Amino acid sequence: MKPREPSPIDRAALTADYLRVRAASEAICAPLETEDYQVQSILETSPPKWHLAHVSWFFETFVLKPYAPGYRPFHPLFERIFNSYYESVGPFHPRADRHVLARPTVAEVYRYRHAVDAAMRELLATCPESDWSTAAARTTLGLHHEAQHQELLHMDIKANFAACPLQPAYRERPEPERSGAAPALRWIERPGGVVEMGYSGDGFAFDNEMPRHRMLLEAHRLASRLVTNGEYLEFIEAGGYRDPRWWLSDGWAAIKSRGWSAPLYWAQGDRGWSEMTLAGPHALDPALPVAHVSFYEADAYARFRGVRLPREAELEAVLDNLPVAGNFAETGRLHPDRARDDTDGQWYGDLWEWTQSPYTPYPGFRPAPGALGEYNGKFMANQLVLRGGACVTPRWHMRPSYRNFFYPHDRWPFTGVRLAGDAA
Amino acid sequence: MKPREPSPIDRAALTADYLRVRAASEAICAPLETEDYQVQSILETSPPKWHLAHVSWFFETFVLKPYAPGYRPFHPLFERIFNSYYESVGPFHPRADRHVLARPTVAEVYRYRHAVDAAMRELLATCPESDWSTAAARTTLGLHHEAQHQELLHMDIKANFAACPLQPAYRERPEPERSGAAPALRWIERPGGVVEMGYSGDGFAFDNEMPRHRMLLEAHRLASRLVTNGEYLEFIEAGGYRDPRWWLSDGWAAIKSRGWSAPLYWAQGDRGWSEMTLAGPHALDPALPVAHVSFYEADAYARFRGVRLPREAELEAVLDNLPVAGNFAETGRLHPDRARDDTDGQWYGDLWEWTQSPYTPYPGFRPAPGALGEYNGKFMANQLVLRGGACVTPRWHMRPSYRNFFYPHDRWPFTGVRLAGDAA
Amino acid sequence: MKPREPSPIDRAALTADYLRVRAASEAICAPLETEDYQVQSILETSPPKWHLAHVSWFFETFVLKPYAPGYRPFHPLFERIFNSYYESVGPFHPRADRHVLARPTVAEVYRYRHAVDAAMRELLATCPESDWSTAAARTTLGLHHEAQHQELLHMDIKANFAACPLQPAYRERPEPERSGAAPALRWIERPGGVVEMGYSGDGFAFDNEMPRHRMLLEAHRLASRLVTNGEYLEFIEAGGYRDPRWWLSDGWAAIKSRGWSAPLYWAQGDRGWSEMTLAGPHALDPALPVAHVSFYEADAYARFRGVRLPREAELEAVLDNLPVAGNFAETGRLHPDRARDDTDGQWYGDLWEWTQSPYTPYPGFRPAPGALGEYNGKFMANQLVLRGGACVTPRWHMRPSYRNFFYPHDRWPFTGVRLAGDAA
Amino acid sequence: MKPREPSPIDRAALTADYLRVRAASEAICAPLETEDYQVQSILETSPPKWHLAHVSWFFETFVLKPYAPGYRPFHPLFERIFNSYYESVGPFHPRADRHVLARPTVAEVYRYRHAVDAAMRELLATCPESDWSTAAARTTLGLHHEAQHQELLHMDIKANFAACPLQPAYRERPEPERSGAAPALRWIERPGGVVEMGYSGDGFAFDNEMPRHRMLLEAHRLASRLVTNGEYLEFIEAGGYRDPRWWLSDGWAAIKSRGWSAPLYWAQGDRGWSEMTLAGPHALDPALPVAHVSFYEADAYARFRGVRLPREAELEAVLDNLPVAGNFAETGRLHPDRARDDTDGQWYGDLWEWTQSPYTPYPGFRPAPGALGEYNGKFMANQLVLRGGACVTPRWHMRPSYRNFFYPHDRWPFTGVRLAGDAA
Repeated sequence: MKPREPSPIDRAALTADYLRVRAASEAICAPLETEDYQVQSILETSPPKWHLAHVSWFFETFVLKPYAPGYRPFHPLFERIFNSYYESVGPFHPRADRHVLARPTVAEVYRYRHAVDAAMRELLATCPESDWSTAAARTTLGLHHEAQHQELLHMDIKANFAACPLQPAYRERPEPERSGAAPALRWIERPGGVVEMGYSGDGFAFDNEMPRHRMLLEAHRLASRLVTNGEYLEFIEAGGYRDPRWWLSDGWAAIKSRGWSAPLYWAQGDRGWSEMTLAGPHALDPALPVAHVSFYEADAYARFRGVRLPREAELEAVLDNLPVAGNFAETGRLHPDRARDDTDGQWYGDLWEWTQSPYTPYPGFRPAPGALGEYNGKFMANQLVLRGGACVTPRWHMRPSYRNFFYPHDRWPFTGVRLAGDAA
Repeated sequence: MKPREPSPIDRAALTADYLRVRAASEAICAPLETEDYQVQSILETSPPKWHLAHVSWFFETFVLKPYAPGYRPFHPLFERIFNSYYESVGPFHPRADRHVLARPTVAEVYRYRHAVDAAMRELLATCPESDWSTAAARTTLGLHHEAQHQELLHMDIKANFAACPLQPAYRERPEPERSGAAPALRWIERPGGVVEMGYSGDGFAFDNEMPRHRMLLEAHRLASRLVTNGEYLEFIEAGGYRDPRWWLSDGWAAIKSRGWSAPLYWAQGDRGWSEMTLAGPHALDPALPVAHVSFYEADAYARFRGVRLPREAELEAVLDNLPVAGNFAETGRLHPDRARDDTDGQWYGDLWEWTQSPYTPYPGFRPAPGALGEYNGKFMANQLVLRGGACVTPRWHMRPSYRNFFYPHDRWPFTGVRLAGDAA
Repeated sequence: MKPREPSPIDRAALTADYLRVRAASEAICAPLETEDYQVQSILETSPPKWHLAHVSWFFETFVLKPYAPGYRPFHPLFERIFNSYYESVGPFHPRADRHVLARPTVAEVYRYRHAVDAAMRELLATCPESDWSTAAARTTLGLHHEAQHQELLHMDIKANFAACPLQPAYRERPEPERSGAAPALRWIERPGGVVEMGYSGDGFAFDNEMPRHRMLLEAHRLASRLVTNGEYLEFIEAGGYRDPRWWLSDGWAAIKSRGWSAPLYWAQGDRGWSEMTLAGPHALDPALPVAHVSFYEADAYARFRGVRLPREAELEAVLDNLPVAGNFAETGRLHPDRARDDTDGQWYGDLWEWTQSPYTPYPGFRPAPGALGEYNGKFMANQLVLRGGACVTPRWHMRPSYRNFFYPHDRWPFTGVRLAGDAA
Repeated sequence: MKPREPSPIDRAALTADYLRVRAASEAICAPLETEDYQVQSILETSPPKWHLAHVSWFFETFVLKPYAPGYRPFHPLFERIFNSYYESVGPFHPRADRHVLARPTVAEVYRYRHAVDAAMRELLATCPESDWSTAAARTTLGLHHEAQHQELLHMDIKANFAACPLQPAYRERPEPERSGAAPALRWIERPGGVVEMGYSGDGFAFDNEMPRHRMLLEAHRLASRLVTNGEYLEFIEAGGYRDPRWWLSDGWAAIKSRGWSAPLYWAQGDRGWSEMTLAGPHALDPALPVAHVSFYEADAYARFRGVRLPREAELEAVLDNLPVAGNFAETGRLHPDRARDDTDGQWYGDLWEWTQSPYTPYPGFRPAPGALGEYNGKFMANQLVLRGGACVTPRWHMRPSYRNFFYPHDRWPFTGVRLAGDAA
């Protein structure tokens, strides 16, 4: 989230971006009932209403308050209740209790959004040149921040709808674009050597992607596509969840204490396995990628197959040489799709790929100064890096160097598994 | 909740009662925003929407399904999600997760209510005589059940609004009817001897109020009114919450682990103590009765004053000889009021009075047969009896023999304290 | 524990009592290895070493410090680490962490005991008459206190030995005194009316047994003996632990969350059910009384049989007219025995009988002044009364009016079940 | 713990090693009272008795059972109760309940040890050549395993003694070897480039140290000695534990929920800060290295100083070029010492140095086959690497490539802090 100051940012272009991104958040929520905005079904999620307000709070706090002269906060308590975790900004409402915030209502939150939007348009138009580069950089950061919450909205809505016994559908099921079995899994041999990784361009990147630095890789190989539901089902049917051999010690403890025996949204009924999707429950399609597994499950599956998960540098080396294209949020599918053919590596989009790499600072990493330094840096413990984006990630928000991160037990993100191995 | 079969029940009168009670529940919710219907701020509460649906489920399950020929349940899953705790009826949605039920929406719940209402009106008009006495008794039980949930709605709405940092007001503050200090506390001497307690009439009563039986009381005395905020404040200011001498061992553990140092809705600010009410936060009025204390706090306060809490039989002996009148829900105040004068004993209404009597079965108690036997009997452990009703209790629902019960740590009910003592 | 001042206490007799009781505690521990003294297998228990020290601390704190001129405490930290729960005395070591007290060693604890004994002998011999009645009353209280800890030692040693996978035997198994089936269960009809209960003599009694007061009982009936293992097994085999109909709501929650499906020390193996005893594991004898059940299980069993548990006054009315005799600790069996014959009511000894009576103060109850007032009074919440004593209770310590009390989920005491019912 | 098969191992030499290491464990326990052997003061620790038995179980399970013909296990239940975490071997006694194992007694555990020793001597003398290389490799592994438990014994004894209010001394305080202030902290500039790390010799190493592989380092700098108590005190006095700026998000949550405001064994009294040591409590010496801090505290301290913690490769590159010498267990001090002079880098011994490197597999890592594969590999999640050994580590057990690992909240190991930074 490094508010970098690249080539001069065009005011009109940034304003257009701003309006487009803000509108997209509201479009995501358009299918929701008022009640749906209020739910926090598991601790990790936030009510959709809260997301909509928090991203506005971000602009208010980091752009409007410092740069819009005379800006008056929309409500004196919003600083506290829509602050997510910025200790430097001040005390905040407990994360676990966001669902008790009946007020402000959904309508008030939309009024808040629109008041912030009006002030932002004004600021983008009138901000003096002396402030422009910082204000523009922070606005850009705010848009990428909002993109992250757009993905969270999809994740959280899915979790909420799945937690409701009525299992409602958030949207119609998209027509299947492809059908049939997944292409056979091939191994792609990759050379070792010193590679560069991390962001170095003059566009936007988060601080945690920098600095670009060298990294030494050993020769290795990567699977040609994501692991499928059908392949993962073999692991389940072979007793994978009952056999400690495949599991990290913490993973074994996790599946025992949480009672896990399949991916998050799977259910076994009279007619076999089904999977909850944003279009409601559907019969499990063995050709689709397995989704919503924890790192522990991804790692156990890899061990079951005698291989391992990729390192983040191994994936970045591939991503660096590919166009940013794939099954992203813009396709509107909001579900991972089968690999199209033998050449479809599913490197971008579909599902975030668990790596075996803990989320740690790159050599020379410096968090941004001030409260924005809390954006990424303070989470560099106990989490794992995921790469490549998912079907709920906006494509414009993606880069080869993008580092996502979650705790090893997290299953509500759109996570998937790519196998890797050492060179033969 | 014994579905007793008293003097023949008039169909028209019961239908009128039904419509009146059902309308009252909806009137309670009229001031709510859709978002307010969804909140479960603490484990003990339920979302208002859930209350509205559950009381309809009660009629559907215990009246319509058995007695309305061809009745088709409104929704196949409602049996599970709106069952509160009737194990005999089948498995039910976890109590702690009622807030995740975004669906059915509020509008659907109202449709559910109205479908049940239509079927109930039909049944009350056309039920054959052979079924009438049971159907009428169960309908009557359903209305008293709904009255209990009307009180819970007020309790839960208050808890939810207080949990929201914006601390909204559920309603306008009623004009103060009286003012000035509370009348001085007097001791009323009460004789010992064998008394009768429990319900024996031919109207409605819950099974836990029966059978009427004899009880031996020692001579004792009762305070002439409820303990006031001002009196309770003396306890706080004397260090009452820091002095283990006044506390039951479990009470001391409770206030330490929960961090309690004042009644539930009190807050200390720059301008002194305030109290959250259904009309929002207001400066603490020392003449009003202290409310929302746990049994542990009520008991500690009594010890601090060198006396004790009443026994339930001691209170029933008084209530038995008084008209059922006082500051009940019908006054619309929804807050306890100061004792009017020296003759105003506050025996009925204002606040439920903690007794020192554990909630146990009366000699000869028999729970109703079948699932309705779960209504009261299975809760006869670990709870205390409270007597007299509160400002959120419908007056028509009250009787001298009425036994309410809560856990000793519960503070979200409208509880208060009356002192008692042994005869001098 | 009211330190009452009855007929003048003879110094020589009290000294002899003192030495006898103190020796008995050490005799209980004689079979223990040093390691056994250190274990606290469940939260409710204490290491045997701690018991031995705590009872000495009691004499030191309540007799020696106030009445032995110039008495110097054995160790400055013992006041803190061997105080059980007397807030008035000062802060104390957390109950759950008594097992971490490696020091003082067992040998030092015995030195502590013997130093206290020497000082007590001196005091009992030389105490001036002006102090005698109080010092003697407190010494008597201390002996009854030690008797309670002798019972706790047996309970805790059993829990500790059962928790060890080696399941050692604390002692040899006593020769069976009787054999064969239990006598048939008969119902004894008992009249209603006003009875007196509570202690009124001039010997020792705890404060919670007083004052003697009148109580009105309805006609009822009591089972002629305790429920047997064989009878309880029928409950288990009829699916009793899987059927919510029999259970209090809190009881059902308890057995689900704790995974209970049989009494505490039962185990089902290849050769049927066995039971852990102080003589190690043995095949379950269907004629012996069922032991180590919680109140919830006792209550559910009674409901399964269509009856109920006794009230404490119902039991005291019987006990009041019987000699204090039965299978107490003095028999050395340390296990409940089968009813000898049709006349053997098992009213005293064998097992503490759960009543349905919550542990509450008698009318007119006053706790002792000062720290000793914490002995009983502050526990009068959330517990149930048990009556009659058990096979690990010293007989000399028992009275008809004796009230024992435990939480409804407690199973490590020597608890049993007597059925009761309302008059036919 | 890779049971590698290096140059032929000499039987006599291995037998001598075996006897020396086994004797050392018993010597560590020599000062203990029987009671001390039984204590498990915090969840992470084990009773010393359990350690002594478990290391014997290791030889029994992995050497004697497979290689000693006709070996009969000492006790059928020991397989279960002294198995630490080897799922492949079978079910095991819960870790948190090791303190309830009163039996076997300490004396029996010593008999167990000596029976295992006798069988091992026999095996080492008579094992056929065909088995020798594996049996010898596993024996060697067992000795390094025992060395790890010797360190754990010191850690656990310290935790246990500190948890006891009497705060006993495990041993006399060693005469101070040096005195005065610590030498000034200097920065040592270190070049970047490709380095090799990991074990490659033909002696013993654990599987997690292999394979030796290349690693690319950026230029960096390392502090010339460990952080001292005096320096750390400046952090505390500057409000470090109250300022979220310095803390990882998970670290801030940890210090809040655990109530930490100083290193584990520090206490503030009337006469200033003191520190619990294995020689009892002593006044805090500002020149000694700060010990018993969590990763979170080490990391926060580094941020407070504007620098960072080292990477494990950065430390290994230094260690690789130094003799394995320092304040190890053999010095008998059992406490970190001040840096002797400007040339004393404290690289080896004194305290394990937290690195910022998560504990992950090296490229090409393969766990040992069978149950021994559980030794290290399954813990490669959620932990951090520490380097260099401590004053309670046997020197013979150390290597430059040695990777120790703990959870970021662990404080009971002998941990310390070395600062690092990027090249200027």
